[in-house]
Amino acid sequence: MFESDKLLDRINYEIRIRSEKFKTMQPAGLYSPVCYMLEMGGKRLRPMLLLNSYNLFSDSIDEAMPAALAIEVFHNFTLSHDDIMDKAELRRNRLTVHKQYSENSAILSGDVMAFLAYEFLMECNSEKIIDIIRLFTKTAVEICEGQQLDIDFENRFNVTEEEYIEMIRLKTAVLLACCLKSGAMLAGAPCKIVEQLYELGINIGLAFQLQDDLLDTFGNQEIFGKKIGGDILANKKTFLLVKALELSQPSVYKELMYWINNVSCIPEEKIKAVHDIFLKLNIREIAENKIYHYCRKSINVIEKIELDKTLKFHLESLIDNMLKRNI
Amino acid sequence: MFESDKLLDRINYEIRIRSEKFKTMQPAGLYSPVCYMLEMGGKRLRPMLLLNSYNLFSDSIDEAMPAALAIEVFHNFTLSHDDIMDKAELRRNRLTVHKQYSENSAILSGDVMAFLAYEFLMECNSEKIIDIIRLFTKTAVEICEGQQLDIDFENRFNVTEEEYIEMIRLKTAVLLACCLKSGAMLAGAPCKIVEQLYELGINIGLAFQLQDDLLDTFGNQEIFGKKIGGDILANKKTFLLVKALELSQPSVYKELMYWINNVSCIPEEKIKAVHDIFLKLNIREIAENKIYHYCRKSINVIEKIELDKTLKFHLESLIDNMLKRNI
Repeated sequence: MFESDKLLDRINYEIRIRSEKFKTMQPAGLYSPVCYMLEMGGKRLRPMLLLNSYNLFSDSIDEAMPAALAIEVFHNFTLSHDDIMDKAELRRNRLTVHKQYSENSAILSGDVMAFLAYEFLMECNSEKIIDIIRLFTKTAVEICEGQQLDIDFENRFNVTEEEYIEMIRLKTAVLLACCLKSGAMLAGAPCKIVEQLYELGINIGLAFQLQDDLLDTFGNQEIFGKKIGGDILANKKTFLLVKALELSQPSVYKELMYWINNVSCIPEEKIKAVHDIFLKLNIREIAENKIYHYCRKSINVIEKIELDKTLKFHLESLIDNMLKRNI
Repeated sequence: MFESDKLLDRINYEIRIRSEKFKTMQPAGLYSPVCYMLEMGGKRLRPMLLLNSYNLFSDSIDEAMPAALAIEVFHNFTLSHDDIMDKAELRRNRLTVHKQYSENSAILSGDVMAFLAYEFLMECNSEKIIDIIRLFTKTAVEICEGQQLDIDFENRFNVTEEEYIEMIRLKTAVLLACCLKSGAMLAGAPCKIVEQLYELGINIGLAFQLQDDLLDTFGNQEIFGKKIGGDILANKKTFLLVKALELSQPSVYKELMYWINNVSCIPEEKIKAVHDIFLKLNIREIAENKIYHYCRKSINVIEKIELDKTLKFHLESLIDNMLKRNI
């Protein structure tokens, strides 16, 4: 097995090569925002998952690299369009594409990234390629559905936990599952394991998104890398808010709605007030338990997979690393 | 060969069936704009080209129908995103998606249509499917490039005829060429003919877009279906304006620039003034000659294709019908 650092270096190297090529392509107005997005960095979590999954069955990583890049390019397309929709101004401490360039640039360069993802994917010499394109396309449709649900939730105050989990399954988990599944498919893994890895990806994805929700309120700003409390300020229907709305008695519910509807208060004041309501309602512990629940499910799936013990251990530590983002 | 009316009826029938299915799908906020777009109607030119091309070699039209629908769905995705970028309020006498719903809806439903196009495409049972996906993806990237060039031209007053032709080749012609080529590929046509049909599509596409430019200024409103002079009002760098800027002597150039920079005049006045400048510079005849040039090239390609005389005749009358939009 390749070490994680090595894999990440190779991914970043390949992205740099591709980005340099895009810089020479015309029209520059189309390809420059693509480079801008790709060079923003990030953890490259999705290509890492794909390559790690491939690496469980084969060492010839280069064969899977185009698919890994495809997923990263696709993911950046979704981020760029989501940022327009959310009117987000910053991503990873840099201006978002629509702020750095223009909304039209962000729409069009996002579109081309979606198609470039297919071009990258088709660089893979695999007899499974059509099945992988099918999986990738199904995943892309689901991610659009998830984003729409997220938008729909903005105007609703009765979102159930079940609805919330379905939303993050579509918006976040299916792509991680697609990574694990397509990596294994490319390596020619047996059908049964391929499906188990998909199931694993869903559970990891749910745990990952729930943890993201938790860190946005209870995280350590330096380690998390984003400003704490952003979700609270944006009234985002995170797991925390969904549960708080569900579990609060009339007086606390009223207090929560007061802060949600308050648009003129000092940001820090609102963050502190909602944070304290979450604590009062035990939401932090509820969220931690939910994350633990999906981690357990992940471990259970790994236990069932017919794989070498060392490989299973590798998978487990991969998940550990993903979810070991300090609170 | 199927008659054109029959083919169009079948396409519209299939689109209706698909649209009805989308109406039952969740989240409705995502799929409702998709139905809205698909039910706007239109000439269904692109699926018609694909099916007609397929029909040159095979009568089992149903086999190619998913690909024909894929292209129509894809085309509507590009229209929807273009309308946002152009801030267009009306399309086919109805509100554009971003006006009827919202900009975010138009972005996201456009995105999902791009992926639904791939889903439709992959419904085709063809051993050529991966090559067709490759062609389709390359075409989609080129269309984004063409749209970017079109945007770039907005702020330039020295666009050459050559640059203009390259822009419309990418923005319009490659999709028509992709239709003719993929129809023939699906029917298992010989390689050489497949490539010739692509070349034919490019020439038809260029003639078609040039005619569109011409009709927007010199057309008959009722037959053209759009308000005459829209391009002039929007200062769109059409073939007419590109040539007028190129061919005008200083005094006429100054007059033209006066109208381009005039934002407060009565619309009809601007349309009439620029229209008259075009006539003075003989732009109408120059455009007509250019259209004739690409029509001739189309006919030459058809003559070289190794096909039955009746089939060649069918291809020719197809082009005739496409370009017989009265002036």
